[in-house]
Formats: sequence, C-alpha cells, structure tokens
Amino acid sequence: MSAELDFIAALRALAGDPAARGLRDDCAVLPFGGQTLVLTHDTIVAGVHFLPDMDPADIAWRLVATNISDLAAKGAAPVGVLLAYQLNGAEARFLEGLRAALAEYGAPLLGGDTVGMPDGAAQTLGLTAIGRATHTPVPGRDGAALGDILYITGPVGGAMIGLEALRGGDNGAASAAYRRPQAQLAAGIALAPHVGAMMDVSDGVLLDAARMATASRVTIAIDSAAVPIAAPEPRRAEALRWGDDYHLLFTAAPDVVLPVHAHAIGRVIAAGKAPILLDGAPLSLGDDLGFAHG
Amino acid sequence: MSAELDFIAALRALAGDPAARGLRDDCAVLPFGGQTLVLTHDTIVAGVHFLPDMDPADIAWRLVATNISDLAAKGAAPVGVLLAYQLNGAEARFLEGLRAALAEYGAPLLGGDTVGMPDGAAQTLGLTAIGRATHTPVPGRDGAALGDILYITGPVGGAMIGLEALRGGDNGAASAAYRRPQAQLAAGIALAPHVGAMMDVSDGVLLDAARMATASRVTIAIDSAAVPIAAPEPRRAEALRWGDDYHLLFTAAPDVVLPVHAHAIGRVIAAGKAPILLDGAPLSLGDDLGFAHG
Repeated sequence: MSAELDFIAALRALAGDPAARGLRDDCAVLPFGGQTLVLTHDTIVAGVHFLPDMDPADIAWRLVATNISDLAAKGAAPVGVLLAYQLNGAEARFLEGLRAALAEYGAPLLGGDTVGMPDGAAQTLGLTAIGRATHTPVPGRDGAALGDILYITGPVGGAMIGLEALRGGDNGAASAAYRRPQAQLAAGIALAPHVGAMMDVSDGVLLDAARMATASRVTIAIDSAAVPIAAPEPRRAEALRWGDDYHLLFTAAPDVVLPVHAHAIGRVIAAGKAPILLDGAPLSLGDDLGFAHG
Repeated sequence: MSAELDFIAALRALAGDPAARGLRDDCAVLPFGGQTLVLTHDTIVAGVHFLPDMDPADIAWRLVATNISDLAAKGAAPVGVLLAYQLNGAEARFLEGLRAALAEYGAPLLGGDTVGMPDGAAQTLGLTAIGRATHTPVPGRDGAALGDILYITGPVGGAMIGLEALRGGDNGAASAAYRRPQAQLAAGIALAPHVGAMMDVSDGVLLDAARMATASRVTIAIDSAAVPIAAPEPRRAEALRWGDDYHLLFTAAPDVVLPVHAHAIGRVIAAGKAPILLDGAPLSLGDDLGFAHG
C-alpha cells in the first residue's frame, strides 16, 4: 500500500484544479458549459479485483455497475462510457454482460480503446463513466455536518456471501449480489438535493464512513446493530468490513424527510481522536475497518 | 487482428449514440451544457505499445501526448485528464514525465485510478482526455470532399528514426521524436474552422489517409515525393508506413488560406476501387500501408 499512497500523494500535487477535488472524492466534478460534468474512471485487474475464472459477462457488469455507482454517489445521470478493453479471447461473454449493464443504466458506449495482451499478462480493464449532475452543489465526501444522521440505502455483506457462493460453484441467485451489484442511480439522484455528504460503499461501510469522517473533519458514531446486513447475524462484524455492495452512505440533517427509504445507522459528532466510534469504541484508518485494495 | 475487429464490430452495435461517431473517429463528440465535449481514451501496454525498459518519464509523456493529439485532431482545447495507472515500482520517473506533459498541454489531472499489478503482468496504462471543442461542427475523418487538397502539418518517419536511436542507447535528441512526440494542439485549434476532414497520424500517413478516405467515401491520391520526411531519402517508403509521429492530416478546399504552415501531399478524388492512389497505384487497407497495432 505504501507505494500506492506515496504515488497518490504525488499525483495530488498535479491535481490542483478544484474539479479534481484533491483526488479524494469518487469523481471529478467540473462546470462545463452551463451544466456540471461528473467523471470517473476505474480500472480492474484479473486476480486483483476479480476472479480470473469468473464469467466475463459478470466482469463486464461489475465494471459498468461500479463506475455508475460512483456517478450515483454524486447524484449524476449517466451520459455514456468509454471502455478500455484488453483482448483475451472471451469477448463474446464480455459483450453479453456489457450490453446488459449499459442497458440497465441507460449509458451508451461512446468510445474507448481495444488493445492486445501479451502472453501471461493479467487482463486489465478500464471504464470511464461520464455523467451530468442533476443537482448542484454536487455532494462530496466532505459534507457531513455536526448533528447529521448517517444513513445507508441498503444492506452490507451481500457481496461477501455472494462471493462465497460463487467460489462454491454457484452462478445463480446465491452469488448474484457479488456478480451483479446494483448501482443505486435513482436513489442517488433523488437524494442529492437532501444530503450533507454522500458516497458509495465500495470498500466496507466502516472504512468508507471513516473516509467520509476524515474528509468532513468530524467523527461519525455508528451503531453496529442498526446497520442492515445481508448475511447471518454471527457474521455482522465481517459484513461491516466487507466491500462490493455499492449501497449509498450519506448524511442528512435530522429534520430532512428523505425521498427514498434508508436506514439510520449513526450520527455525526465533533471530531474526536478517531474518525469512527463503533458502539462507542474509537476506530481509526489504520485499524481493521475494511478492504483496502489497490 | 481478427478477434479485435470482430469485437469492435460488436461494440459498434452498442455505440448507436451519435456522440460515439460509430467508434470510427478519434474521439467521442457530444453536446453538453451548450458546448461540445470531446472525449478520448487510449490504453498502452508494456511490450505492445511501448518498450518495457523505456524511461517511465517518456512512457508518461507519450501517454499524455498521444491522447492530447486526439483532441488536437478535433480542434479541442484540453480540459483535463483521468489517469489509469498500474504500480510497478517506477513511479518517480513516471511522475516526472507526467508532470512535464500535463504542463506542456495545460491539462490538469482531474482523477483516475491507481491499481496493483500481479507478478509477471504487463504494465497497462490508460488515459482519458477531456476537451472542449473550439469550433463546431467538430471535424471528423469523414469530411474529405471531392477536390479538397490533402495536407500534413509536418514530417513523418521521425519516430521511426527516433526509436532506432533509442534502441541503440540514445536518450537524447536523436530519439526525442519517438520518446517525446508533440501533439499539434495549437495547429488543430487553428485549423478546425477551415478543414474538411482531420485526424492525427498515429499509425502511418498511408494507413491513416486510407481510413480518412474510407470514412469519407472517396479516394485520396497521394504524391509520395511531396510528403515531408524526417528520415534519409532511401527510407521514404518506410517513413510513409511508420506511425507515432502525431502530425495532423487534413483536407481543405483549394481556395482555403491555411492559418498554419502545412504541406500539400495529395488531393481528394472520386471513390475508385481503392481508398488510396499512391503515385497513381491503388492501395487498399489490406495492403502494406502502415502499422496496425492492437
């Protein structure tokens, strides 16, 4: 991780434009013409971000859904995507999943690049998602205010259970939460005018909440029993630390009537010594909070 | 190549949005907020698109310059870039080149993704360049009209000579044309209001002219002796087939007074049996026209 963190710190020096949001947010956000452009790019690598023997249709779905999820966290509507694809001979199934995911989110393919892959290389795939903000100011991770309630739009732990099912040979409903995550696009658009901070939960609710707290210079107190989980109760602690579920984590003032159903799981308090209080116990970014992958 | 061509054909079915330009242009071009957004993404792979032992500063420069060159071909001004970087331990030099290239083209880093690389993998790097059209309609490859003159903004073959020098151990001026290609951004912006078709020469002037002719449904007659080359005269035929030079290839009506210096190298004639006539000899895309890499 150290090389990555050092590199990102150096990149921040090149990212002084306010649109870059210090490389600390899910997306770049910039005025363009009379509207606001929202841009994100995720790269996934076989063996790092996905199982090399997964159905390529599921890999394509995840590539699209996770990027669209970043747009959802900004309340942005998709304009389209650019695909960076590396040929590995499994194009037919990849196209199936790509077609399904682009149709699901109404995001046309606008361009990209297709390249070869040397023997023995790990397939590396990228997607740039382009969106249009539906509300300004565009929510960031840094908007959590004292007294806000912390909410999540759905359960965590489903992808953990789904991955286990996939590893056990399931390719149906039991593994769907991992294979076919759902970007909360409609919820993000509905919520954007009402939230303080908002982000998608990609790396685990505790880790992502800690990032939100750090960006907002507050502490967030989380009631672990209030977090909805899609896993057996004995695995609650794991579910809170597992990623890939892509629900939206956001704060709103207590008097806000939310336009979509969400679960209150904590509250924003004055910055203490740690970004998170979990059932009263301080937890910091160095602690075991979630899944920080490259 | 067949897998790549089949895949791209399938992608075109997903790219029905006019902004995608049928995936046949250098960039996606779309109205946004009363202006016109120009987007491109290129991916480069160690051992496929660059020498694995090149100075990472030069790799970064090439990654930026080649994407900015696509914006230049649209007459677009850079708004910023998203970087997809795969950690390989050579970050310090990569950052040097990245900083220099972004400064050269006035393109701030807006975001992206940094990922790990499994052992033995080939480093795969991507860049999304975002631009703002300075003139509409935005030039495409398909605008070459009967009677137009074909021009190029500078010589070809320089990158060929530069690569040979680099392979021979040079890291200075003799290899600079390959290591540090120059995107013709100012020329592209100046030319956009005046051209029929425009594109950058990335894969060789003959191959790229053939693509322009095909997109425009015309034939382009090229006078090989008129093409400026940055290589010894005996290597003229090679220089016409070598890529990586990134000058702009464009057409304009004979009465147009060009705002920048360019070399007239051919003319647009009615579509014949081949897209190119080279000194009167028909040449098709299947012939040895240039460098078609993945």
